[in-house]
Amino acid sequence: MRGKIDKMDIQLIKLLAKNSRLTYKELAEILRTTRQRISRRMEKLERIGAIKKYTVIPDFDRLGYIYMIIGITIKPGIPMEPVIEKLKMEENVKIIERAVGSHNLVIHMVAPKEMKEIEKRINDLSSKIEGIDKMDITFITDIVKFEIL
Amino acid sequence: MRGKIDKMDIQLIKLLAKNSRLTYKELAEILRTTRQRISRRMEKLERIGAIKKYTVIPDFDRLGYIYMIIGITIKPGIPMEPVIEKLKMEENVKIIERAVGSHNLVIHMVAPKEMKEIEKRINDLSSKIEGIDKMDITFITDIVKFEIL
Repeated sequence: MRGKIDKMDIQLIKLLAKNSRLTYKELAEILRTTRQRISRRMEKLERIGAIKKYTVIPDFDRLGYIYMIIGITIKPGIPMEPVIEKLKMEENVKIIERAVGSHNLVIHMVAPKEMKEIEKRINDLSSKIEGIDKMDITFITDIVKFEIL
Repeated sequence: MRGKIDKMDIQLIKLLAKNSRLTYKELAEILRTTRQRISRRMEKLERIGAIKKYTVIPDFDRLGYIYMIIGITIKPGIPMEPVIEKLKMEENVKIIERAVGSHNLVIHMVAPKEMKEIEKRINDLSSKIEGIDKMDITFITDIVKFEIL
């Protein structure tokens, strides 16, 4: 049974998605179980990688940043692994997602609100990725709704 | 000074972005201040909207879901507000972002791993948005890196 995800795990992740600062006690009360069981479940979910991270969603604009989503299509036949390994090390690259569909690589970047700096970072990024076929750059101006599950 | 964001606020948000479950005590120790001051700062950041949410990043694949990012370009002149208000109510639409650039609306959806169901949800979504010029659908297969700030 270790490593298996059940209904209670999904409920627990949904609660944490709404508020990851809920204490073991609060989670236990909502799910009508004990703190020990909640703590054991969360440890399991972290260990098997079902929970990747507890994080915060800031208002980037409020903090003085521009948040960009860059959808990249790499030409067929180009191996993605070396590209991803290189990008992982980049301080400016915050999120890297492998994908299929319109894009096969999605990159999220945060930059200060200066067009020259943004241009530089985008050029830097594209120079590091071999075989780019298409690059769709979208600047997020407002996060209107944010739920995870 | 209320509502102003300083260096310490940014440091605090960066710590919470790495692990939003850190306690006031742990945060106070790292930032060499008191629990009371941390708690007051976090309250301020939540109140002014600089912190939008404490959440968890799951492994969608592990939980049995497909995670999609849909970049939408709406024809010029079409008002976005009614579209956004309609989409906010949609249970399947998890994240809605206003944007400028390649797309002016970015939608994140989560769906069970069944192509028929995915097709249905995408068709449902597009039928609800007036004046779509272009729709780029990207299925996220793996989150390789995830940092926020």
